Amino acid sequence: LGRYLVLAAARRGLKTFVVDPSAQAPALKLADQARAVSFTDRSVLEEMARTCDVVTFESESVPVQALEILAQLGCTVLPGTRSLGIAQDRILEKTFLAQLGIPVAPWCAIEQASDFPKAIGLLERGAILKTAREGYDGKGQARVDSLQTLESAWHSFGQVPCVLEVCIDFVQEASVLAARDTGGKVALHQPIENRHHRHVLDVSMVPAQIGPAASKAMEEIAHRIVCDLEHVGVLAVEFFLLPDGEVLVNEIAPRPHNSGHITLENPVSQFEQHLRCILGFPVHPEFSTKGSAVMVNLLGDHWKGTDEPDWGCLSSEPQAFLHLYGKELRAGRKMGHITLVGSNAEDLLRRTLELRKQIFLDND
Amino acid sequence: LGRYLVLAAARRGLKTFVVDPSAQAPALKLADQARAVSFTDRSVLEEMARTCDVVTFESESVPVQALEILAQLGCTVLPGTRSLGIAQDRILEKTFLAQLGIPVAPWCAIEQASDFPKAIGLLERGAILKTAREGYDGKGQARVDSLQTLESAWHSFGQVPCVLEVCIDFVQEASVLAARDTGGKVALHQPIENRHHRHVLDVSMVPAQIGPAASKAMEEIAHRIVCDLEHVGVLAVEFFLLPDGEVLVNEIAPRPHNSGHITLENPVSQFEQHLRCILGFPVHPEFSTKGSAVMVNLLGDHWKGTDEPDWGCLSSEPQAFLHLYGKELRAGRKMGHITLVGSNAEDLLRRTLELRKQIFLDND
Repeated sequence: LGRYLVLAAARRGLKTFVVDPSAQAPALKLADQARAVSFTDRSVLEEMARTCDVVTFESESVPVQALEILAQLGCTVLPGTRSLGIAQDRILEKTFLAQLGIPVAPWCAIEQASDFPKAIGLLERGAILKTAREGYDGKGQARVDSLQTLESAWHSFGQVPCVLEVCIDFVQEASVLAARDTGGKVALHQPIENRHHRHVLDVSMVPAQIGPAASKAMEEIAHRIVCDLEHVGVLAVEFFLLPDGEVLVNEIAPRPHNSGHITLENPVSQFEQHLRCILGFPVHPEFSTKGSAVMVNLLGDHWKGTDEPDWGCLSSEPQAFLHLYGKELRAGRKMGHITLVGSNAEDLLRRTLELRKQIFLDND
Repeated sequence: LGRYLVLAAARRGLKTFVVDPSAQAPALKLADQARAVSFTDRSVLEEMARTCDVVTFESESVPVQALEILAQLGCTVLPGTRSLGIAQDRILEKTFLAQLGIPVAPWCAIEQASDFPKAIGLLERGAILKTAREGYDGKGQARVDSLQTLESAWHSFGQVPCVLEVCIDFVQEASVLAARDTGGKVALHQPIENRHHRHVLDVSMVPAQIGPAASKAMEEIAHRIVCDLEHVGVLAVEFFLLPDGEVLVNEIAPRPHNSGHITLENPVSQFEQHLRCILGFPVHPEFSTKGSAVMVNLLGDHWKGTDEPDWGCLSSEPQAFLHLYGKELRAGRKMGHITLVGSNAEDLLRRTLELRKQIFLDND
């Protein structure tokens, strides 16, 4: 995500100053100035404040405190810290959604052992314990169905604050990207249907194979969230779709989103849109993808047992767009993606999955 | 052009090694490895050959000799040297086009004083003397209409080989981008209408306001040229359109072209297309721009007398795409461009020009 933000900035002739604690972060390599240090390194934050007109982030792992220091030093920090602070903490996030009357899976906070009794009703329906902070892609999550398994999971997480959620028998997952500019104008990207594999995003497609009422409900919810948070920039809302057509919010990502990579072949990508907003320009009114598009992720796992992916297979699909992020290979890591753009989403899906299978010699 | 090639490569996770004699070249800043040295620096060429799988170029100023050294060192150099060698020399270029029977303005070569007599017929019709090598954007060109003015112009050019061309009373100018892959497949971008201001590209638009017969003739010519040259990658052919609908080739640019910046908001930009071809992937079959688009260049001249362009004006056109190249300001230099995408080219043209006027406080 950071790398694509830097690339979008470069188109505008903007110079970038990137901070990431990991020296291998792909965005660092393309930045005009790159610092592989902790987000809270005071001297680098001071340097950043002296150098940069606007500061943004592309990960919830950036501490709110770092952004507050930058703001104190006179930097324009967009989006502000409100949406980040809420998205970093599942308890705050679910409380915020409850206050807006936005439906989520039944849940309760588990902050101390005395919270266990109120969990009984949820446990009976099958539930999932998630650490309130710092979990992503299924990390810091455990299925629990009894007080015993709850207690043991909570202990394995180090007794940190958690949320317990009922496991939802959803039929589909989708995300809506919402971009809001400093003038308060909002542009929405239509729902993107997402399919996960072992908790990691596997496939995204537009249009989502979802009825108009559910689509409209999701768009309205995303609109309310981005406005209520006074978020400036792109924000993604992840949804569960229930068998009866009801939609529940899964979580909020206060930044461009992996599913939004499907916009990279559009005139207005999520990164272009994010930049417009944080630079004080109006959001581009046409954010939705025209026609159909399917994106499949390439995960570190796909490389397993493959000496070298057979990229030559791409020749069988001249219309495919290959993206690789320049990351070091690791299992479970998102290494890149392939997008096919066309008119029939089901056909594109079949072809894109087939292509991935060929590239990785059926190691799919 | 180099900067956008690097950006397109970065999307694919490719690493880039950029050589440019000018330390300020915008592509150098984004490259993984950057060398601000002469194109013929032997030790850097050797380093490049050790480091790179494929080498390409984005300017006719790269000496053929440098590419030949790289090829000798075992590098894949695409496009090869044939189209470059021809495009670097107006005499070779016009001879090549004549051999293919492709119409150009009446011309003759002026290589020595004894060539003057054969120029008389052309001079009577009003002609332009151009140095055979190293002219661009109107540099190395002079209007001549008599043996006397011809002789004085030729002397002012240092008596280097030149071509003398009849001045064409064209009604329009256009360019066709042709991309050809290693398998010989070609994808064409429909004609882009170009308007120049003082010999520098000012405005490009699609669709060109040109009839179907002339459009088809231009596409056929571009197709023949790219095939006959066995060019791999993107190549642009610049055309003059005569009042009677006839088309003449002005010149060949064996690389992505400034007018092709209009493709940057498309799924397949000219840079993506160029990369596909030189990497050995098939050319994307859909190269033409859908709908309408207008691009206006921002030249160094526009900044004159403006303390700071009023970029805030962009707020009046939320659909505009601003591109700045990160170059040092200089009169006549292409500093960036603005593109508007929509359905009515005339309307887009009016709005884009108006926008530029506002940004530069009527200093247009």
